[in-house]
Amino acid sequence: MASKPSIPKGTRDFSPAEVAKRQYIIQTIKNNFEKFGFQPIETPSFENSETLMGKYGEEGDRLIFKILNSGDYLAKANGTHLEAKDSTKLTSSISEKALRYDLTVPFARYVVQHQNEIEFPFKRYQIQPVWRADRPQKGRFREFFQCDADVVGSKSLWQEVELVQLYDTVFTSLGLNGVTVKINNRKILSGIAEVIGASDKLIDFTVALDKLDKIGEDGVKKEMIEKGISEEAIVKVQPLFNFTGSISEKIQKLAQLLTTSEEGLKGVEELRFICDNVTNLGLTTAILDLDVTLARGLNYYTGAIFEVAAPKGVAMGSIGGGGRYDDLTGIFGLKNMSGVGISFGLDRIYLVIEELGLFPETVTASSKALFINYGDQEAFYALQAIKKLRSEGIKVELYPDNAKVGKQFQHADKRNIPFAVIVGGEEMSSNSYSLKNLISGEQIILDFEGLKNALI
Amino acid sequence: MASKPSIPKGTRDFSPAEVAKRQYIIQTIKNNFEKFGFQPIETPSFENSETLMGKYGEEGDRLIFKILNSGDYLAKANGTHLEAKDSTKLTSSISEKALRYDLTVPFARYVVQHQNEIEFPFKRYQIQPVWRADRPQKGRFREFFQCDADVVGSKSLWQEVELVQLYDTVFTSLGLNGVTVKINNRKILSGIAEVIGASDKLIDFTVALDKLDKIGEDGVKKEMIEKGISEEAIVKVQPLFNFTGSISEKIQKLAQLLTTSEEGLKGVEELRFICDNVTNLGLTTAILDLDVTLARGLNYYTGAIFEVAAPKGVAMGSIGGGGRYDDLTGIFGLKNMSGVGISFGLDRIYLVIEELGLFPETVTASSKALFINYGDQEAFYALQAIKKLRSEGIKVELYPDNAKVGKQFQHADKRNIPFAVIVGGEEMSSNSYSLKNLISGEQIILDFEGLKNALI
Repeated sequence: MASKPSIPKGTRDFSPAEVAKRQYIIQTIKNNFEKFGFQPIETPSFENSETLMGKYGEEGDRLIFKILNSGDYLAKANGTHLEAKDSTKLTSSISEKALRYDLTVPFARYVVQHQNEIEFPFKRYQIQPVWRADRPQKGRFREFFQCDADVVGSKSLWQEVELVQLYDTVFTSLGLNGVTVKINNRKILSGIAEVIGASDKLIDFTVALDKLDKIGEDGVKKEMIEKGISEEAIVKVQPLFNFTGSISEKIQKLAQLLTTSEEGLKGVEELRFICDNVTNLGLTTAILDLDVTLARGLNYYTGAIFEVAAPKGVAMGSIGGGGRYDDLTGIFGLKNMSGVGISFGLDRIYLVIEELGLFPETVTASSKALFINYGDQEAFYALQAIKKLRSEGIKVELYPDNAKVGKQFQHADKRNIPFAVIVGGEEMSSNSYSLKNLISGEQIILDFEGLKNALI
Repeated sequence: MASKPSIPKGTRDFSPAEVAKRQYIIQTIKNNFEKFGFQPIETPSFENSETLMGKYGEEGDRLIFKILNSGDYLAKANGTHLEAKDSTKLTSSISEKALRYDLTVPFARYVVQHQNEIEFPFKRYQIQPVWRADRPQKGRFREFFQCDADVVGSKSLWQEVELVQLYDTVFTSLGLNGVTVKINNRKILSGIAEVIGASDKLIDFTVALDKLDKIGEDGVKKEMIEKGISEEAIVKVQPLFNFTGSISEKIQKLAQLLTTSEEGLKGVEELRFICDNVTNLGLTTAILDLDVTLARGLNYYTGAIFEVAAPKGVAMGSIGGGGRYDDLTGIFGLKNMSGVGISFGLDRIYLVIEELGLFPETVTASSKALFINYGDQEAFYALQAIKKLRSEGIKVELYPDNAKVGKQFQHADKRNIPFAVIVGGEEMSSNSYSLKNLISGEQIILDFEGLKNALI
């Protein structure tokens, strides 16, 4: 017990100032989710292992935190795996529950389990922590919050339009102007794969294309050929090497490029609907951009794909992302439930707002005034005023001990409390309060009404 | 996958209506915590096992959820315990982390770990889930929220006074009038033990005394003698059998009873200070009561003990509790940090408010209006209005699909949305909106300003 206590790698304690700032972001996201008609649900921190395992690929399964069964768990352990010391195989016989890895699979499970109580289309949001046994590193934690808004039960593309608006509204509310909402479509990517005649090379292709800015057209083509993409394929998609212009110009180029791909053209139509309507309705501070190299979660999404980049000049990966998945609940036996959703990266948004100095000063405000404690009689007199001030919603506190006055003032200072109220014998006999501004040093004598008005 | 998915025993999904009600309670508690100068901290969901184990007694250790180490955990498992199939002993070699069991031990760990950054006295609150591998039963869950406010670093009894006021303020804010804040003091209980000459019989004594209402004085005395408490002891504490009257009368009786116990008299002094000041400052709706049978966590608390009972007529166990513990952080090597704190029982408070019908109607309010979707042109027209309404903070939504109108109205109805806005060709050409009140059935035509004013 002599060693200093610590917390597990990849987890964090949050100080009052940090909690206040995180809550400010969460509350802003929450308010806007609700303005757009999304409703909150909450699911348990742990799920039955069978709900989670096998949903995130082999790597994902490894990163899920498993909870040891209670009691004499070895009594029911698989003897063969135990003797063979096979950790991977033994797990399922000594652990039945696991911490959730994301909010999407629990949401799918929720929808299936409660399908008879839910009125579809169901617009839900969920802001809760998730856990991953990932190697901790700068900006990557083992416990972190996800902030997700999804709609299930409708294929309407108006949802995509509104989700882009939601990104715009949230980031504008946070004062984070100039974010870029990048959009692409899984069907466009399939179409390109069809055109280049190599569905299995699609990832290599988009990764290489994404380097155009850095290594130039020749460099990209060289890399593509090294990865086994044919010269003919590269010729076919030549327009992607000069993929500039307005969104509608880009869409026009894609339409011409993908004429031979039915799925590709469907993707073009979807992109056109979404981008046209977003543009015509207008965004407040966000910029919409069509990015054909955007290829997140290829196996997962089936339609639109979104990713949000921080304002130019801020070095930070994506601060949000999402897309449409055609069969969200199929894994749990409920078919034909198309879903579309977006999420916000709380930790990264926090860092960007901190870097740009955009947290409002009021966010971290603690108590408005500290009442100095001169002894029991004075403290009682102070608490009478404190009680009335609190009932007006004003945050005030009494220093609990009759300590040296200097120490009490120092306490207010260290806590960033802007005012001290002095209540000694003189104030008590004249039914007044001395209010000291701890920044300017100015001190004035007030009656209760005056005190209240000064602290409101 | 054909079987309906489920969640682990003792955990819960929360629907939108439930989340909204829980958030209403949490927000009320939070606002009042902050008005009293408490500041939020957050700690990780799991701690190193050594932080938690051994802090809650043997039973507690068993109820802590342990997290299995990642990767090849059997490689580092203790071979002897593995071969002996000794689950209890094996755990420490295959599990290094565990889910927090309460918020108090993590708080103590936090204070010690961050002692150089903290300005004492430190008033912190924490509202987070905790986990216990307890047998699930009605009203007892394996995952539940604790809402705690504690102060460390000051022995001032003004803290106790303010904590009683905090209970009063929170329950008054929730409309839960008439709760009883029961108070006792660990030192009073020690004093009684001294007087009856049987420290080891104290629990039997208080349990028996607590039955006075049910089984009468003779019944209680009979039970005490059966438990091995001497007749002389019972004679000595005779005043406790007629322990009625005002708080100051009760304190007077205790003072007389405990004249031979130094610690007992110290308890009397503390009780007198707290009760006198609480009474003189006045409570809004709560009732303060001195209850000598109150004996929660005897090994833990060292001074005042609190427990809150629901208003009379509501059958519910305690809805809050707390007290002073003289050495909160000693277990982690930081001595002389007196602490005092209270907690609120979220789940029980929820049930009481539900039973008494005290949730404000506005709590579960979803969107104010659903815009009916008559097709893409109309939807675009609707979304222009929707965008402006949302920027005014009004919650509105568009039905995403051009479905049958009856189905869309039904959707609004099932979602408890009070208004529908109809935007067909006629409205578009006259730049207006038909607003239908879904409760009265009344329908009126409005321009945008009129619509906005109707929905604010």
